Amino acid sequence: MARRPSGLLVVALALAAACAGAADPLPSWSEGKAKQSIVDFVAQVTKEGSPGFVAPAERVVVFDSDGVLRCEQPMPVQTAFTLDRVRALAPQHPEWRDQEPFASVLRGDVQGALARGSGAVLELVMATQTGMTTDELDAMVKDWFATARHPVTGRPYTEMVYQPMLELLAYLRASGFKTFIASGGGTEFLRAWTESVFGIPPERVFGSREKTSLQLRDGRPQLVILPVVDFSDDKENKPIGIHNHVGRRPIAAFGNSDGDLPMLAWTCEAPGPRLCAFVHHTDAAREWAYDRESKIGRLDKGLDEARSKGWTVVDMKNDWKVIYPPADRAGNDARTR
Amino acid sequence: MARRPSGLLVVALALAAACAGAADPLPSWSEGKAKQSIVDFVAQVTKEGSPGFVAPAERVVVFDSDGVLRCEQPMPVQTAFTLDRVRALAPQHPEWRDQEPFASVLRGDVQGALARGSGAVLELVMATQTGMTTDELDAMVKDWFATARHPVTGRPYTEMVYQPMLELLAYLRASGFKTFIASGGGTEFLRAWTESVFGIPPERVFGSREKTSLQLRDGRPQLVILPVVDFSDDKENKPIGIHNHVGRRPIAAFGNSDGDLPMLAWTCEAPGPRLCAFVHHTDAAREWAYDRESKIGRLDKGLDEARSKGWTVVDMKNDWKVIYPPADRAGNDARTR
Repeated sequence: MARRPSGLLVVALALAAACAGAADPLPSWSEGKAKQSIVDFVAQVTKEGSPGFVAPAERVVVFDSDGVLRCEQPMPVQTAFTLDRVRALAPQHPEWRDQEPFASVLRGDVQGALARGSGAVLELVMATQTGMTTDELDAMVKDWFATARHPVTGRPYTEMVYQPMLELLAYLRASGFKTFIASGGGTEFLRAWTESVFGIPPERVFGSREKTSLQLRDGRPQLVILPVVDFSDDKENKPIGIHNHVGRRPIAAFGNSDGDLPMLAWTCEAPGPRLCAFVHHTDAAREWAYDRESKIGRLDKGLDEARSKGWTVVDMKNDWKVIYPPADRAGNDARTR
Repeated sequence: MARRPSGLLVVALALAAACAGAADPLPSWSEGKAKQSIVDFVAQVTKEGSPGFVAPAERVVVFDSDGVLRCEQPMPVQTAFTLDRVRALAPQHPEWRDQEPFASVLRGDVQGALARGSGAVLELVMATQTGMTTDELDAMVKDWFATARHPVTGRPYTEMVYQPMLELLAYLRASGFKTFIASGGGTEFLRAWTESVFGIPPERVFGSREKTSLQLRDGRPQLVILPVVDFSDDKENKPIGIHNHVGRRPIAAFGNSDGDLPMLAWTCEAPGPRLCAFVHHTDAAREWAYDRESKIGRLDKGLDEARSKGWTVVDMKNDWKVIYPPADRAGNDARTR
C-alpha cells in the first residue's frame, strides 16, 4: 500500500549504484585512509544480509556547508553576499556612514568589520536580509550568484565547491543515501543555490533562520522575514536542527569546525555502523591551510577531538587530487536561472 | 554533476506513472467533480511542454493528518494515546487524582477533560510526552500503535486511515509529487508511524513540537524533550512550518478544518496551477458527519471559504466508495515493528 514509488526508487538507486561501481566513484580522491574508510563504510551498510546493513530509508548523511562542501576563505559565501548587499543598499542608508559595523564595510575595511565578531556579522545580515518576502530573498540570492566572483580565484561562487565532495555526494546518493546539509548559515540563503550546485533540494537543507510572518503583500499571502533570530544552527543546536528536519539520527556526518563537534558526536556515539569525518584544510597552495585559528575561535578542539575519537580526518592536500571542479562544469544551472 | 540518481528517479517515476495510468489510480473514488479535479490537475502539471507543466522537484503537496488522511473521531489519535499514557502513568502520580484535567481522565470522564479545551489537552501532552529522549518517545508510540484499538470500530489505529487517501498518496507519488504531512499534532508522535502507514518518511512529516536539549544519557548524546512548546503548527503558523521544512510553496494542499485555511490560501493564492481541497465529513453511517461544530471551534469558516474560493470539496459520503482499507491491509508494518 502506498509504496510503489519507494520500490521503484530503490530499483533506480540500485541501478545507479551498479553503474557507479563499474568505475571508481571517487576519482578525485587519492588512495589512502580517508577514501578507504568511506568506501568500506558504504560497502558495509549497503550489503544486504550483512550485520552492518542499513535500510535505505535510514541512510541519512549530513554535511556542514562552509569549509566542507565549499570554500569558506577568505570568508563564508553568505558573508560575501552580505557585504555586497550593504554596499548596494548604502545609498538608502546615509546613517550607515557613521554607524559600525556598516561604516567599516563602506570604508573598504572589511577585516575591521569582521573583526567585530559574529554579532557584527549578524547585524549586517539582519539589516540586509530581512523585511522582504522569502521569495524576494531567494531571487536576490540567485541574482547575486549569477554574477559575483570569488575575490582570490575570480571564479563564480558556484564553482568554489570541492570536486571530491561533489563526487562523494553522487556516490552516496547512488548508494541509496539521503544527503542533507546542516549549516550554521542562513536557511533561505542556502536553499537558493544548493539544489543547482549540489543536487540537494531545499527540503534537505537547513541552517539558522529568522522568524517569518504570514502577511498579505500585493493581495497575496506571503511569508515576510522578520529581523528576529528564530534558530541558530551551530554547536549543541546542530543535532536539534537535524532532528527537527530529518527526524532520524544520521549514520554519517561531515564537518570541519568546532561548531560541528556536537553533530559529529551525536551521529557517531550511537550503536550501529557510523562514519564521521573531519575536513582538515592543509593545502595552502591550492586552497587554504588553517586549523587552529583562535582569532575566529572555531577550530580550537575539532582536530584533536576527531583524532582522539578515531573519526576520519580528510587531509585536503594529500587526500584530494583536485580541489575545484573544472571551470564551467559546476553551477551552470544557478548562473543561468 | 551530482545528478545521476535524480535522473534515474525521474525515469522511475515516469514508469510508475505510466503503470498507474493503465488502470484507474483512484479506484475508491467515485466519478465526480472531486476526483475529476484531482486527475485534471495531475494531468496538467505532469504534461511536459504544456503551459501548466511543473518540474518534479517543485511538485510539493501537503496534507493535514487528522480528518484528512485519517479518522479524527471521537478524538484525534494523539489524544487517545495521551489519555492511555495518563492512565498508565497514574500510579506514579497520586497527585493527579485531585488535579484537573488529570482527575477527570482518571475518573473516566474523558469528555469532561476534553471539554476543558486545547490548553488542557496540551497539559496532558506535556505531562506524558516530555522528559524522555526522542528515541524513547518514538518507541513508546510504536508500542502503543501495536496494540491500541479504536473505541468505536475496534480496529487498530493504523487501519483507521482513509483508503481513498492512500490511493491518492500513491497516485501523486507515482506522478512525481513529493508528499508531505503538515499537522497540528506532535511531530515526534506523527513520525513514529507515518512511514509505515502512509509511506511518508519522517523528514517529510512535521507538526507542532516541543523544545529539545542535547544531553548525555547513559554516556551517549541524546535529545531530551522539554516541557516547553517550541512551535504550534496551526492556523497562520502552518505556512511557516511548511516553508521551514520544505523550502518551497506547495502546489497542492489538502485540509479539513479552519486551522488549515491559511495553509490552503497560501498554497492556492499564488500564480501557476494549483489544487486545494477541503475534506467534508458527510458520512454519518460509515464515518462521522460534522462540519460546523462551534463546540471545538475548528470548523466555523472552512467549508464556506472552500466553496467561495472554488477549492475542491471532497464529500466523503458521495465521493468515496469505501472509507477504510480492508482489514489487515494497512499498517502491518507498524504493528510488527
